[in-house]
Amino acid sequence: MGDSLNKSDIASLSDEIFESRITNHESPNSMSSSPLLADLIDALRCLPGVGAKTAQRMAFHVLERDRDGARKLAERLALAVERIGNCSRCRTFSEEEVCVYCASPSRDRGLLCVVETPVDQLAIEQATGYRGQYFVLLGRLSPLDGLGPKQLGLDLLATRLAEGEVQELIVATNPTVEGEATAHMLSQLARAAGVRASRLAHGVPLGGELEFIDRGTLAHAFGGRQEL
Amino acid sequence: MGDSLNKSDIASLSDEIFESRITNHESPNSMSSSPLLADLIDALRCLPGVGAKTAQRMAFHVLERDRDGARKLAERLALAVERIGNCSRCRTFSEEEVCVYCASPSRDRGLLCVVETPVDQLAIEQATGYRGQYFVLLGRLSPLDGLGPKQLGLDLLATRLAEGEVQELIVATNPTVEGEATAHMLSQLARAAGVRASRLAHGVPLGGELEFIDRGTLAHAFGGRQEL
Repeated sequence: MGDSLNKSDIASLSDEIFESRITNHESPNSMSSSPLLADLIDALRCLPGVGAKTAQRMAFHVLERDRDGARKLAERLALAVERIGNCSRCRTFSEEEVCVYCASPSRDRGLLCVVETPVDQLAIEQATGYRGQYFVLLGRLSPLDGLGPKQLGLDLLATRLAEGEVQELIVATNPTVEGEATAHMLSQLARAAGVRASRLAHGVPLGGELEFIDRGTLAHAFGGRQEL
Repeated sequence: MGDSLNKSDIASLSDEIFESRITNHESPNSMSSSPLLADLIDALRCLPGVGAKTAQRMAFHVLERDRDGARKLAERLALAVERIGNCSRCRTFSEEEVCVYCASPSRDRGLLCVVETPVDQLAIEQATGYRGQYFVLLGRLSPLDGLGPKQLGLDLLATRLAEGEVQELIVATNPTVEGEATAHMLSQLARAAGVRASRLAHGVPLGGELEFIDRGTLAHAFGGRQEL
């Protein structure tokens, strides 16, 4: 019985602590020594993966140790949001009308790699030696989210293919259900324009162990085995 | 032998990939479609726990999905860095000459809790029902880092104690070597001013299991056991 008493004591205590946190959390201005600081903590939560606790740590960190960095971040953030739009040719992020990839004379105009997002484009650019051009869908086919061919800029892509410069369309959408559907539509588009379409190889990732690789990937890798 | 050839092939390939990443990393402007974007990614790294990859994810996220949030963050960051200074009485972050804690008439002026940083102050404020005043050291005694009594504002604290209003000095420094040294100096300061000093209890944390608690903490908890 002494035990159960203790337990309920502890439970009520935890509730009290929890309660006070909730209350404080709902009125952030009251919990901080400075309303501006509370506003900053709140605003930091727009960043992905940043919750209340991390935002707090970030705000205190920059105020205590890196005000110059914070000042610079504020400037660049404002500038980026204001000035960065989309390239009129490939739809990636760019502050110019035409992005550096599309404007570059040294990049092969016969190759066009289609990706879902600018991050995917950056990943390919960083990891591979690809020196062709890109087209960024800014999404994937997803009718439920209102993303159809028009939103993905497929009319722009069709015009580009019709120009006749592109020899090969490299489809680099994600291997998800929606990505696959998008890839299917892209291959149809390429066929209609008489352009060869290819896609990234599926297979065993470097450093992966066969034992732990999922069945689908392994089956793909086995089926697509290459001559040594 | 065929095996060792393969391995060296893979090693050289990995090196190549690694190399290209390193190269790209050293000249961030060349890896992105937009110099402003590269600047933003670079600036985001001033936040604690944010490396190259996370910064990249954050930049793309706000540009793709939350430009309003980013605009707000830029404003608040600039405003916070410009306007937030330190309270002249307790040295915590405050945009006013005297912070809300020090200015509040409802807080007990007989209790003074000394903490190392504003984050510690916030933690105590959120978790406990403490309604006294605070004093923030903005650091801990650490001669190697050039942090002596002067940098911790101990003269300000001594003046405060000499005013005679404070009845109890609650020492809430961290239980680290430097924090303990700071606590020792604070207790001497309190004794010199004839003020009672106390410190946070050491013991078993709530929800902790005895089996996994370190020896020092368990010894403290055992020695400081309390009547049921």
